[in-house]
Amino acid sequence: MKWNSPNAGVAAPAANSNEAEKSVMSLADIQNTPDERNIPIDRVGVRNVRFPIRVKDRSNVSQPTVGTFTLTVDLPKHFKGTHMSRFLEVLHDYGHQIDGESLPMILEELRSRLNSQTAHLDVEFPYFMAKPAPVTGNIGLMEYDCGFSFSRGATEYAKVIAKVPVATLCPCSKEISERGAHNQRGLVTAVIEPFEFVWLEEIIEMIEDSASCSLYSVLKRPDEKFVTEHAYDNPRFVEDVVREVSIRFDADNRIEAYTVEVENFESIHAHNAYAMIERRKSR
Amino acid sequence: MKWNSPNAGVAAPAANSNEAEKSVMSLADIQNTPDERNIPIDRVGVRNVRFPIRVKDRSNVSQPTVGTFTLTVDLPKHFKGTHMSRFLEVLHDYGHQIDGESLPMILEELRSRLNSQTAHLDVEFPYFMAKPAPVTGNIGLMEYDCGFSFSRGATEYAKVIAKVPVATLCPCSKEISERGAHNQRGLVTAVIEPFEFVWLEEIIEMIEDSASCSLYSVLKRPDEKFVTEHAYDNPRFVEDVVREVSIRFDADNRIEAYTVEVENFESIHAHNAYAMIERRKSR
Amino acid sequence: MKWNSPNAGVAAPAANSNEAEKSVMSLADIQNTPDERNIPIDRVGVRNVRFPIRVKDRSNVSQPTVGTFTLTVDLPKHFKGTHMSRFLEVLHDYGHQIDGESLPMILEELRSRLNSQTAHLDVEFPYFMAKPAPVTGNIGLMEYDCGFSFSRGATEYAKVIAKVPVATLCPCSKEISERGAHNQRGLVTAVIEPFEFVWLEEIIEMIEDSASCSLYSVLKRPDEKFVTEHAYDNPRFVEDVVREVSIRFDADNRIEAYTVEVENFESIHAHNAYAMIERRKSR
Amino acid sequence: MKWNSPNAGVAAPAANSNEAEKSVMSLADIQNTPDERNIPIDRVGVRNVRFPIRVKDRSNVSQPTVGTFTLTVDLPKHFKGTHMSRFLEVLHDYGHQIDGESLPMILEELRSRLNSQTAHLDVEFPYFMAKPAPVTGNIGLMEYDCGFSFSRGATEYAKVIAKVPVATLCPCSKEISERGAHNQRGLVTAVIEPFEFVWLEEIIEMIEDSASCSLYSVLKRPDEKFVTEHAYDNPRFVEDVVREVSIRFDADNRIEAYTVEVENFESIHAHNAYAMIERRKSR
Repeated sequence: MKWNSPNAGVAAPAANSNEAEKSVMSLADIQNTPDERNIPIDRVGVRNVRFPIRVKDRSNVSQPTVGTFTLTVDLPKHFKGTHMSRFLEVLHDYGHQIDGESLPMILEELRSRLNSQTAHLDVEFPYFMAKPAPVTGNIGLMEYDCGFSFSRGATEYAKVIAKVPVATLCPCSKEISERGAHNQRGLVTAVIEPFEFVWLEEIIEMIEDSASCSLYSVLKRPDEKFVTEHAYDNPRFVEDVVREVSIRFDADNRIEAYTVEVENFESIHAHNAYAMIERRKSR
Repeated sequence: MKWNSPNAGVAAPAANSNEAEKSVMSLADIQNTPDERNIPIDRVGVRNVRFPIRVKDRSNVSQPTVGTFTLTVDLPKHFKGTHMSRFLEVLHDYGHQIDGESLPMILEELRSRLNSQTAHLDVEFPYFMAKPAPVTGNIGLMEYDCGFSFSRGATEYAKVIAKVPVATLCPCSKEISERGAHNQRGLVTAVIEPFEFVWLEEIIEMIEDSASCSLYSVLKRPDEKFVTEHAYDNPRFVEDVVREVSIRFDADNRIEAYTVEVENFESIHAHNAYAMIERRKSR
Repeated sequence: MKWNSPNAGVAAPAANSNEAEKSVMSLADIQNTPDERNIPIDRVGVRNVRFPIRVKDRSNVSQPTVGTFTLTVDLPKHFKGTHMSRFLEVLHDYGHQIDGESLPMILEELRSRLNSQTAHLDVEFPYFMAKPAPVTGNIGLMEYDCGFSFSRGATEYAKVIAKVPVATLCPCSKEISERGAHNQRGLVTAVIEPFEFVWLEEIIEMIEDSASCSLYSVLKRPDEKFVTEHAYDNPRFVEDVVREVSIRFDADNRIEAYTVEVENFESIHAHNAYAMIERRKSR
Repeated sequence: MKWNSPNAGVAAPAANSNEAEKSVMSLADIQNTPDERNIPIDRVGVRNVRFPIRVKDRSNVSQPTVGTFTLTVDLPKHFKGTHMSRFLEVLHDYGHQIDGESLPMILEELRSRLNSQTAHLDVEFPYFMAKPAPVTGNIGLMEYDCGFSFSRGATEYAKVIAKVPVATLCPCSKEISERGAHNQRGLVTAVIEPFEFVWLEEIIEMIEDSASCSLYSVLKRPDEKFVTEHAYDNPRFVEDVVREVSIRFDADNRIEAYTVEVENFESIHAHNAYAMIERRKSR
């Protein structure tokens, strides 16, 4: 038996594996038959695969979480199908730890076991950061939906994804109103391609610094007073937030390319405000 | 052929229907075979059925929209299965207009065609109201997710559902802060059981009146100034909104029972604030 | 007052519009102030706007449905913000009918009112087709999530989107098993860029012809026998479906470019099988 | 400072906590002010709180996963509001391990810190089981969405939730067709109230035994042959599956009450088939 599972106490029925091995031989391999249609497939594989993973965080602790994977390869025109079970085998063999070292290894293993030129891996997962409240310093755990998108072969890229909820306060509303200003929760989605390693925490902090105010898990009254006034003193349109993130990403030489989207769940409308910037730096 | 579709220009292949009729006779009716397990089923039917409908609005215009239906009946212990296609036949025959008259008729038809004691219908649909901006009076179309949940037979009820997005401004944040106050979009979900007919528009307006401010589709600057100041002058916790809706529903003698939920997409947290009141009036 | 709503019987408070006009003049236009950050924004606008629309179908009937819109423009580096309300004004003025003629007009209007070089419109909507059952010919309404994605200005494209649920039956399972074969619902998502006009119905039918079997709303027993045997006689991997669609799109000279994705909700796994082909034809 | 986070290497700015303590004293406690509306609130609290947790599994390993929480209490009519931050404090203090022992403790702590009569906790989380393939015995990790819903005070209940994807093969289609039979993925949702402790794994297995076939993560060809034929030999309507689960739950004396729902993502329709049974046993 080839796999073992980190949280499995179940004994596997190693039982009839010899027999199984034999019976595989005798069953037709339809996927492997030639295909006459002469059409190569760009990507083929498995999607919405849920798998428990660990992601190393900035404090060098390996944080347990749950990944949702898409794993694909290219399929040359002369094969009828790919072997879907091998994607899962590779994931069970190598997928428990997800980081900059394991991801290229997983992709190489996919290319090799699937006899393909190119392999792609996309994974999203909830990621937690301990974050002190701004005045009381009480620690709360904030969750961010993060991910990686890697490719190796005919295309090669390594993308890091962070979705960061923030507060935005409307500069127009503040300017024209005698009191108050509408504000709301917004979501900033960043996809970056780094030249060199960047921690998820660093991306998250650059984004939080770009908003009217950062969000927190536990806020006592002095904290709530602080975040209210801080947001009021830092009004930001979606246009401002997307530009402020852009400034920070432009200034960071480790970042080669990025897309930043900001979506505000407007507190005065039922629809959302939206802004997007996409850049690739020339070396 | 029994159905016709309001937006179908396609000619149906009436073709082989005689033959079909015969072949039905010869095919076993497994659903109709006896079941020995002695277990009645509370509800059985179809779910997530999408169907174009019309809903009459307060201005007596029949508004076209798209319904998502669940249709179910009870199944006595002695039958193996229900006849799923009949739910769709009833919907195609009677479901194009959804209102207080057609719904009981659809339920009676389901009970009759499915030979069941009780029938249930749930439908949700986007519903639009033309709403003038508060200062300029510019008309914008606001969308609300609404629905009906009806039952006839051993259980009898008629529920009206409205989900209304609103603005809420935090009274605590306003009180303790020197300037500004955090506010956000919230969603109020009301399920009411009326003694007598109530328009969806009336429920929606009672809810919008209970929040810090109503939402709008098109707001020019004088409108935005108005809604900002109006929200600031009417701070409301989720607790306040749920109580304000409750007061209005209690005062309306057409309403027999209700559940009101308020969920705030807090602009200072990544999680939501929530409150719920459930009441049944004694006549 | 400039707008009127097709399903609004409500009289608009034309009231204080003169006063409003005046007050606009006196309120600062923050969006219009210069921006020193020197960063143009690729796209800025509104998202998740729900609006009742009509879409002309192949039978030349204008089908009422509900659109979910994203409307964006580019923002030059020297402006602080865009004027979000104008997107909604354009939608209320021109958005009730969505087709190949109205879409370019909406985009031109957006470019003009927003003083921008480029405008983009994305809209998704449920779309219904009347479809006869394969044997009895009974007509049922099938729903498909469709959409358009148009751009005019510095980028110019016109994309048509159709999401078509189908049945797929596994060729490997059929070959190696003594009886039966696993099959399941799959979803085919096609995005095409046409040289010339193509009906949504034509795209949907090309996709349905590529699967093991098409889906239906109302199936009586002779129909169910037919679709069961038809799927068994036409086994298709996701790889087969994506190639079969590709063959049909390649053969249609009205289609310039396309992306086809197939996702199978496998009945033997909790995850999905997936395949994708992306092509641009050289004239 | 009272909390510490398991995956936090960040040093908290314990800094200005004395000052903070003082400033809390001076800030008005709006929530604590009397309310004149005379309306008690059934439930008030926080929703969609994401938090890393551990859940003990049958092999006595504490499985790390991510919980999505709703925490609520009742609010007497004489208080204006609840203190939302205390829900988060309780979660950070006690919520890292979720099991039959910690849940009542968390609820007691909520009742005490929120000065309320009744407290409710709902949590959902992905849960993994190592499961051998039926022939080769290869171990794959299967994910199930599970949860707990507990209440203490004026209402007292303890509910265990498991959502289990399965395969179902249609008995009617098999009977009337000369070859094949349509089958599909279905989802069984069980909510049980136990008299005594029941492992999630036990509930999941009772449900999987009730379907046409269980789902697997990794299947090699001999496994695929097995599951195809096993499903074909065990045809089940949604009505059959819901009854089979009901038989197993009825026979298990540890289970006091249950609701079982089965929803089939039909491979011949775009809509779903559905069945539901709800039972409470008399002791």
